[in-house]
Amino acid sequence: MDYSALPGLTVDVDGGVATVTLNHPPLNLMDGVLLPSLRGFVHRVRADHDVRVVVFQSADPEFFSAHGDMAYVTDPEALPAATRAAVEAAPGAEIPEGLNVLQALSEEVRMLPQVTIGKLAGFARGAGNEFLIALDMRFAAIGASGQAQPEAHLAIVPGGGGTVNLTRLLGRARALEVLVGGQLIDAETAERYGLVNRALPAATIDEFVDALARRMAKVRPEVVASLKRIVERAAPAPELDVYAVENTALYDLFTEDMVRIAQRQLEAGVQTREGERDLEGLVDSIS
Amino acid sequence: MDYSALPGLTVDVDGGVATVTLNHPPLNLMDGVLLPSLRGFVHRVRADHDVRVVVFQSADPEFFSAHGDMAYVTDPEALPAATRAAVEAAPGAEIPEGLNVLQALSEEVRMLPQVTIGKLAGFARGAGNEFLIALDMRFAAIGASGQAQPEAHLAIVPGGGGTVNLTRLLGRARALEVLVGGQLIDAETAERYGLVNRALPAATIDEFVDALARRMAKVRPEVVASLKRIVERAAPAPELDVYAVENTALYDLFTEDMVRIAQRQLEAGVQTREGERDLEGLVDSIS
Amino acid sequence: MDYSALPGLTVDVDGGVATVTLNHPPLNLMDGVLLPSLRGFVHRVRADHDVRVVVFQSADPEFFSAHGDMAYVTDPEALPAATRAAVEAAPGAEIPEGLNVLQALSEEVRMLPQVTIGKLAGFARGAGNEFLIALDMRFAAIGASGQAQPEAHLAIVPGGGGTVNLTRLLGRARALEVLVGGQLIDAETAERYGLVNRALPAATIDEFVDALARRMAKVRPEVVASLKRIVERAAPAPELDVYAVENTALYDLFTEDMVRIAQRQLEAGVQTREGERDLEGLVDSIS
Repeated sequence: MDYSALPGLTVDVDGGVATVTLNHPPLNLMDGVLLPSLRGFVHRVRADHDVRVVVFQSADPEFFSAHGDMAYVTDPEALPAATRAAVEAAPGAEIPEGLNVLQALSEEVRMLPQVTIGKLAGFARGAGNEFLIALDMRFAAIGASGQAQPEAHLAIVPGGGGTVNLTRLLGRARALEVLVGGQLIDAETAERYGLVNRALPAATIDEFVDALARRMAKVRPEVVASLKRIVERAAPAPELDVYAVENTALYDLFTEDMVRIAQRQLEAGVQTREGERDLEGLVDSIS
Repeated sequence: MDYSALPGLTVDVDGGVATVTLNHPPLNLMDGVLLPSLRGFVHRVRADHDVRVVVFQSADPEFFSAHGDMAYVTDPEALPAATRAAVEAAPGAEIPEGLNVLQALSEEVRMLPQVTIGKLAGFARGAGNEFLIALDMRFAAIGASGQAQPEAHLAIVPGGGGTVNLTRLLGRARALEVLVGGQLIDAETAERYGLVNRALPAATIDEFVDALARRMAKVRPEVVASLKRIVERAAPAPELDVYAVENTALYDLFTEDMVRIAQRQLEAGVQTREGERDLEGLVDSIS
Repeated sequence: MDYSALPGLTVDVDGGVATVTLNHPPLNLMDGVLLPSLRGFVHRVRADHDVRVVVFQSADPEFFSAHGDMAYVTDPEALPAATRAAVEAAPGAEIPEGLNVLQALSEEVRMLPQVTIGKLAGFARGAGNEFLIALDMRFAAIGASGQAQPEAHLAIVPGGGGTVNLTRLLGRARALEVLVGGQLIDAETAERYGLVNRALPAATIDEFVDALARRMAKVRPEVVASLKRIVERAAPAPELDVYAVENTALYDLFTEDMVRIAQRQLEAGVQTREGERDLEGLVDSIS
């Protein structure tokens, strides 16, 4: 399979494992570049019989993916443009009625016949974390990872499948804490909450995920597909209309007032490397 | 909002956070005083736009809430009287057909547009713990908290929503352990089981919950309401008829023989501060 | 109740607790001996009013139950013969249409009016672990237990209820890790994943489970039955047709090629005590 022409992504296939490296400086934003490339990758890998396991990682040790592009809320043209590019990146794959492009991507990832694994070092926030939790499973580096949904403190809700999927993973009580609190979750807390499968020492996470991926890649594709189908029956994903409720809720919160909050956050340093290192502290200081 | 005339409760509103202190000596029993006051508070706070987060705590470091009043099983007039008082405390708020007053209170708490947090130090048993697990989330003080459902060892079942809600929180395996075993669950085990969001050092739990509540109180009410609605769609609460099954099961176990067990437990020191400090040991010693 | 004539099992009833010891050397295989005996036991104990709690343990400190008999895949007569014996062992108890005998056993265990507890020391893999996770709850000895579903690496899926029940217990993300990864899960990881209720020190697990079982045995049978019914309503088991999907998926993967893998595994030492001590390493070395 040809994985070129996916700007911001490096794809390496070896022994049945595709390693997808997010390499879109400075922050691996889920923007008009990365979103179409990820959707293009998912579209291609679905038909790639040489790939049985996909590992997503970041080239940047500090940022897995900072979040969605703030331009989505400050520039009315940004999200439609990213959506158009993402539609072109996956010819023939329709975005279900009522869903946005990130929700569609989450569903497409979940429906892959292969196993998908997120290897988390650095920050995954907002749409970056929504993508991460749409993967089949994820592992986080102790002392070196942080996950958060900062949307509530921007006066919106996670609308890329994250509100729905976080609730599935964590249950109501812990999901509400993370969604309303918007605080940063470290690897060990993420493991206790079920936000990641395991917290692993930063020194050994590469080795652990590599061994697991190689081991999984030995399983026949029809067995993996069969397991994923039965698991889906035993724990069905939410109906698409639940995602539509989430999407509508997000758009209902798009107000001029919210745009002003976003602009104030941008002026204070949100969406810069410096500002993102303590995004929660920064947001707190200006609200 | 006027929060006076709620005997057994102290309500303090500051910066969008209502702190509700259970202060009904000697044991914060869920009785004909506390139950109506809690229901009255929930009824009022629902319409209070100055409150975005509610924290429930106890004035008594040893007892969050011991349990329901044993008079409910020994005195046929006690529960109807408490129910009447609770109905009067929330004018216009009907108790759904087939549900008892504690179940109705649990549902009313869950449906609040605000976020509710339980800060647990001391013991929460029986109806006290049923109220606690009806809150959106809870945090427990390490070395200083204990939760239990002792009902099975009184020959009844938790009938205030607890059998249903414990199963939702813990899953079948751990819920059955706690429901049939009736053993005391410390903070760390509660965290592992999902019975609380986190176990926190007793020295810092106040600070942690305070910071979280203040942070949550900055989120706009419409965003919180939106998040709670989507979470509800992603993890729907049980239908009311499941609570009705629980209520019926409870009443079916109200026998003269059960009343004799209750009387024996009361004579042995249940529902005294001394006896409640090791309720599990006391109950074991007389059965 | 007469619990004789159950080869491979020793049953001891004391104080309302039935202790069932798997004693079927060399590996406690779920084979044509143990499967009928377990089903026969479940059939009898259901009507035994002297038993309120059942504890399953192994006589072999190294193996709780290695897995299903590999003859099920290499010898076309083995599974039908075991099924016939299991049918005879429980007269009048039908195997639901579309389900296999291990799935039927899992359902029968779950529907018992008594509480069932697994005390795990040693390895529980494949069908052995599927039986274990069908129990109401389980506890594992730290440093002395290991659970795994090695089926995927034999080119099949766990078809005795395990794919379905693992997903219920662990959620999608961790279930997929264990099902596709096929790695060994130690007691502490099992506790974090919810695969067991608790990991306990090997030196005290007997005492802990014994105390819990005796405590639970004091609860009246009608109270236990009532709790199990309400819990079932609050967290309904999958419909039987989900198990049928699992069963069909398993049989669809029975190919001549899979039989060759099984034969190669047997030749390499699978299903010998020596080979089973590091089954994962052994399977890895030959694939």
